[in-house]
Amino acid sequence: MNKITSTLKKAGRLLKKQYFKGSGFTEKEQYHLLSESDMEIHYFLKKHLEILFPGAAISSEEDQSEDTTGKSRGNRIIIDPIDGTTNFIMGKPYFTISVAVETGGEITEAHVYNPLSDEYYYADKKSGRSYYNNKVINVPSPTAMEDSIVVIGVSYKPEKINLYFKTWSRLLDSCRKCLFWVTPAQTICNVARGNIGVFIDMGCSTYGQSAGALILKNAGGRMFNYDGTLYDHGTTGGIFISGGVDDKEVLQSRNSSPA
Amino acid sequence: MNKITSTLKKAGRLLKKQYFKGSGFTEKEQYHLLSESDMEIHYFLKKHLEILFPGAAISSEEDQSEDTTGKSRGNRIIIDPIDGTTNFIMGKPYFTISVAVETGGEITEAHVYNPLSDEYYYADKKSGRSYYNNKVINVPSPTAMEDSIVVIGVSYKPEKINLYFKTWSRLLDSCRKCLFWVTPAQTICNVARGNIGVFIDMGCSTYGQSAGALILKNAGGRMFNYDGTLYDHGTTGGIFISGGVDDKEVLQSRNSSPA
Repeated sequence: MNKITSTLKKAGRLLKKQYFKGSGFTEKEQYHLLSESDMEIHYFLKKHLEILFPGAAISSEEDQSEDTTGKSRGNRIIIDPIDGTTNFIMGKPYFTISVAVETGGEITEAHVYNPLSDEYYYADKKSGRSYYNNKVINVPSPTAMEDSIVVIGVSYKPEKINLYFKTWSRLLDSCRKCLFWVTPAQTICNVARGNIGVFIDMGCSTYGQSAGALILKNAGGRMFNYDGTLYDHGTTGGIFISGGVDDKEVLQSRNSSPA
Repeated sequence: MNKITSTLKKAGRLLKKQYFKGSGFTEKEQYHLLSESDMEIHYFLKKHLEILFPGAAISSEEDQSEDTTGKSRGNRIIIDPIDGTTNFIMGKPYFTISVAVETGGEITEAHVYNPLSDEYYYADKKSGRSYYNNKVINVPSPTAMEDSIVVIGVSYKPEKINLYFKTWSRLLDSCRKCLFWVTPAQTICNVARGNIGVFIDMGCSTYGQSAGALILKNAGGRMFNYDGTLYDHGTTGGIFISGGVDDKEVLQSRNSSPA
């Protein structure tokens, strides 16, 4: 078994126990919750990954002190101890541990693991493949935008919601269904697997999206920065991805100057 | 083991397999998806529950032909084969099988089961208790509305969303976090367990809420019809529930004539 996988499975067992027990939480800022488990999983991963990758920088959602400006030249491990903390706190088993290995500025290995449903996504640059529970996955052939299932990454923030509605009205009014989710890592993987057609998120971070980005890429999907340029995991400011739907069509549907 | 529990565990194994395999789906109406598994679980439950409860009416989200107007006088089994079909289709393991036994017009036994995370909620009128994975659960002591986590039951429907925002602005602007979920059964149970403070849903049905209602009641929570009258599972038109937050305070915060 891959060494990171073995570490993530152990961290997953810990997280699963805490989910059933219930974890205390605090508020980072309004609408941003932090559970005690975020820190516990952070320390667990940091400790074990430092042994597996001596000398590598560890960039974590919960400790950004080792972050370099832009991308590092050596090895860097980018982790999100719990992507989907709010779901974790609220009793919704849709959260993951996300780990990406960056070598020379590029993501070379990606892991996204949901310990509650035991769903494991993995990709590496060398094989050029992505896996869901050890089976190769691919984005399906494009279908019409009207048949797509869309996810927007937002919770209650009226101004942001109205901006999404104005910018993407052509897509949203015509799609089959659109839901609002706050967990980018597994959501990007669900696009890679063909369960979701379009995912748009103005707010997700490098930590929550770096591993998913390689999993999507190897599966044949394309990820864009929110402004429509091709995604580079060093950048922030939101993402827009399309799988199983023609991305040009979706981009053209965007109202670039929302009223 | 309770006979219904044993049937639900079997149905759960079936549903879990289909989740990993992926299930085809159709559209009932715009924004309302139906998977092949909804029908398969419906037939499985109907077949087994008819043997366990000879002569009882089976009211199912997927076959409403045996529904009586209002409540039945004899035994009725109210089932939602998959509460959270869209999540099931989209690769989010937050969906449940929900079964309620109605005797003489009252819910007497309730089961809500998430087979992916193996979370089982149970309540019965006789014991007056509610259980989460065999442990008794209770709604926590009331906290301030400002500290509450809120869930609104809505997907992309701009008019409905704006109506929620206008009606509940005092609650939503002050709460810790508010998310938009489309799966009433487990969400009601999460209120009963203290993970969520307030849940508001204009659109959920008897099928998705009957079992949850008894689980909440036995745990000490109160459920209201959307108009603020005390909930009666025969009625429809939406619900509003509060657990761990003073329900009078939440009701008073409601703007009864949204502009």
